[in-house]
Amino acid sequence: MPKLKPEEIENRRREIIEAARACFLRNGFHQTTTDEICHEAAITPGGLYHYFGSKEEIISAVIEDTTRATVADLTATAEASGDMRSAVQALSSLFFEWARNPEIDNITRLHVEIWAETLRNEKLAEITRGSRAMRRQWLESLIQKAKSEGVYSEQVDPRGLADLTMAIFDGLRLGRLLWKDDFDVDGALQSLLLMQTGRLTNGANVTVDQKEARSAGGARAR
Amino acid sequence: MPKLKPEEIENRRREIIEAARACFLRNGFHQTTTDEICHEAAITPGGLYHYFGSKEEIISAVIEDTTRATVADLTATAEASGDMRSAVQALSSLFFEWARNPEIDNITRLHVEIWAETLRNEKLAEITRGSRAMRRQWLESLIQKAKSEGVYSEQVDPRGLADLTMAIFDGLRLGRLLWKDDFDVDGALQSLLLMQTGRLTNGANVTVDQKEARSAGGARAR
Repeated sequence: MPKLKPEEIENRRREIIEAARACFLRNGFHQTTTDEICHEAAITPGGLYHYFGSKEEIISAVIEDTTRATVADLTATAEASGDMRSAVQALSSLFFEWARNPEIDNITRLHVEIWAETLRNEKLAEITRGSRAMRRQWLESLIQKAKSEGVYSEQVDPRGLADLTMAIFDGLRLGRLLWKDDFDVDGALQSLLLMQTGRLTNGANVTVDQKEARSAGGARAR
Repeated sequence: MPKLKPEEIENRRREIIEAARACFLRNGFHQTTTDEICHEAAITPGGLYHYFGSKEEIISAVIEDTTRATVADLTATAEASGDMRSAVQALSSLFFEWARNPEIDNITRLHVEIWAETLRNEKLAEITRGSRAMRRQWLESLIQKAKSEGVYSEQVDPRGLADLTMAIFDGLRLGRLLWKDDFDVDGALQSLLLMQTGRLTNGANVTVDQKEARSAGGARAR
């Protein structure tokens, strides 16, 4: 490798990550070859391997880079808001916007492949768990701050609400990808709005409390 | 194949499906071989192929059989309730119980593998979409009935609420499987209860309305 300054190395590494991300989003994890990544990044295979030892290392770098960028985006959105209430509103808007954005399907497609891969690849599993933990911690501390400013009620557990929010988002984007026309994302989001504002049901006793739910028995999970 | 009566053929088919389900849940979709299924079902490979032409046909039969059984279970739960309000309560209890049940992880593991497989296998995709549509239609018509009895508010779109409910369930079970100790299922369910009963936030203006969410722009989905 020709002698490069540290910032040139960093720039080249970044270009490869961007090129790899484009390839993975276009063709998925398994279909993408390192040759394609080389072509997209305009680098030789020899050159690529100075930066990354394997396709697995590349996808790990893409995941880490994406997570950092996402958290930076979310932080900027929150900080552009005057107070925690408007920060939560702005982030809720982003949630709805992303859930409706067809572009998200390519990302979810890649994630489903990666999730399946993590079931048999512990190293990749650790990286995806680390990336997920970083996003969860960010959201948890935002909810904690919003709670301390009175946006959320006293009963709210910031950790639990962060987990729930991310689970709902994953369920929605999975629904759009997998079930296509059988999944009505706008209808689901409208129900989510009703749910968040307590307007789903008539009367309070429709849902169950946790103790009741825990002791309810008899049915098998399949 | 020795001459069997129709009910004997049906019984044998059912035994194979049960054996295959056990294998798939134990070892996943890719790791399970037809040899293992033969061993579990105590049948020869030649015998197996009188019933199913490929592993794909077997997994399809398992998916269809599981869907039928799940819908039958849910119907029995709903019908054992006196009215729609208690039916919705009983089904909510089931939702919470299943989301907490560690046994569900093996099912989700198999589903993640199947979902990844459907991204490149349109025949399997159709079968999973059909199975999902059957469950969604069942839930939608239950919500419709509950709405007509005044359990849900007039604004509720049964289709959207069915999609949302299934998306939340998928997000929760995916969270427990993939993120393990970093996912607090009890905390997430507690937040879901608060959300369902409108006790999440102080004041109504925290979440956004759909129009506002739709017009909110600027951020990229990654």
